[in-house]
Amino acid sequence: MLKKELTIVKVGGNIIDDEVKLHSFLKKFNKVKGFKILVHGGGKLATDLSVKMGIATKMVNGRRITDAETLKVVVMVYTATNKSIVAQLNALGTVSIGICGADLNMIPAKKREVANIDYGFVGDVLVNEIPAEEWNKSLERGVCSVVAPITADLTGQLLNTNADTIASSVAQALGKLYSVKLIYCFEKDGVLKNPIDDTSVIQNIRPDEYTSLKGQGIISKGMIPKLDNAWNALNSGVNDVIIGNALHIDKLTSSTHKTGTQLSLQ
Amino acid sequence: MLKKELTIVKVGGNIIDDEVKLHSFLKKFNKVKGFKILVHGGGKLATDLSVKMGIATKMVNGRRITDAETLKVVVMVYTATNKSIVAQLNALGTVSIGICGADLNMIPAKKREVANIDYGFVGDVLVNEIPAEEWNKSLERGVCSVVAPITADLTGQLLNTNADTIASSVAQALGKLYSVKLIYCFEKDGVLKNPIDDTSVIQNIRPDEYTSLKGQGIISKGMIPKLDNAWNALNSGVNDVIIGNALHIDKLTSSTHKTGTQLSLQ
Repeated sequence: MLKKELTIVKVGGNIIDDEVKLHSFLKKFNKVKGFKILVHGGGKLATDLSVKMGIATKMVNGRRITDAETLKVVVMVYTATNKSIVAQLNALGTVSIGICGADLNMIPAKKREVANIDYGFVGDVLVNEIPAEEWNKSLERGVCSVVAPITADLTGQLLNTNADTIASSVAQALGKLYSVKLIYCFEKDGVLKNPIDDTSVIQNIRPDEYTSLKGQGIISKGMIPKLDNAWNALNSGVNDVIIGNALHIDKLTSSTHKTGTQLSLQ
Repeated sequence: MLKKELTIVKVGGNIIDDEVKLHSFLKKFNKVKGFKILVHGGGKLATDLSVKMGIATKMVNGRRITDAETLKVVVMVYTATNKSIVAQLNALGTVSIGICGADLNMIPAKKREVANIDYGFVGDVLVNEIPAEEWNKSLERGVCSVVAPITADLTGQLLNTNADTIASSVAQALGKLYSVKLIYCFEKDGVLKNPIDDTSVIQNIRPDEYTSLKGQGIISKGMIPKLDNAWNALNSGVNDVIIGNALHIDKLTSSTHKTGTQLSLQ
């Protein structure tokens, strides 16, 4: 049987911080046809609010630690952004509901175990426990879920959770029921060969090229976990993964897209 | 045909500010049987955060004005509280989803018109436009909606909205489909005859007694809009309205309740 098509969009980067850009993105996302889900990050708003509140950002080995105070800030900023997006989408015509992983236990997670580093209140998604049938019911009712990157564990503890991972995990869970196109979009036109040249988009990356690009330092820093999430999705039955500019979401979602970076297993 | 029974609980006051009290309340709310909806306020957390962020509270004639900065704080605090409640309820066993009025347009509203005072980004609920059938579907799926006191207008503008009014409005809309018991609960045992004597609970109030109690100044300040919301509900088909202590929610919801203040039309 031919699977239904589902588009899962993760929007992040400075699109979230900028009300005008965000609204432009949402106007285009509103026109994306068919079943769709929107996952968003929090941009720099959480850092900005922490500074205002005098909460020190704690870093260990270059990674942010989510202590109890930081968790409160992150939950506030992400859930408020979530409702703002939902209100705009409903006004535009996309019937939307704003959720996080805690709602109806849609994204079960557990607190990251302390190995060398205690990351604090950070959640790891339990991909195999995502209730695909619940997501399917919501999609079948014509609802677009707008997902904030917060989850909860079995004790009801809220957890800060990577939005790229959430998008990849939901895509994997729904890959059994849908032909899923997963789009990571932000302020750049795709994965760049030269980080200061916006026209140097790499149109296609295969796993062997990925290894080579990492080795050359062309793909580095925050792009590595994003792409690792993308490969996980492709390896677990997601049909398409594309990385591109949020303001070109119309082109990225078209079946004949000619922008952004496409990942291919072969 | 006998209507199904629905319990709508509004919890507010300092229960929301206190994590231990809130969890005690939620453990009891979890045991409330049958169809249920929980509406919450924000307690003093929004004021506390405004102070931390250096945002001045603007009051006109004793009423708070929601300017753009205050709206941001209110949305953050209410939606974060909302997700914390949802995570705890799901962990306890009540299948819950956290929404505000903007989600699926569940509580249509409009910005309060400027008459003598410009209240800013404050929403008035459009009671007749509440989609009772959507609420019914959610209840029929066995889901408890946890409602944050935020709405949106047709343009997608988020609006600060009184939680007592939201509870009363949803109760009125669902009164056509359900036999609704509406419970306003907080840190007091009910409407008190003597505000400094917690044992002076008035067990029953009829409209003529309400007028008399207001005249004597026994019912005053914040209790007046709360009770006005309650009378609106009773006058629009809601079966029962009870005001009482959140930590006695088990007794307040029992069919033979002997605590709190019951309002009766006659």
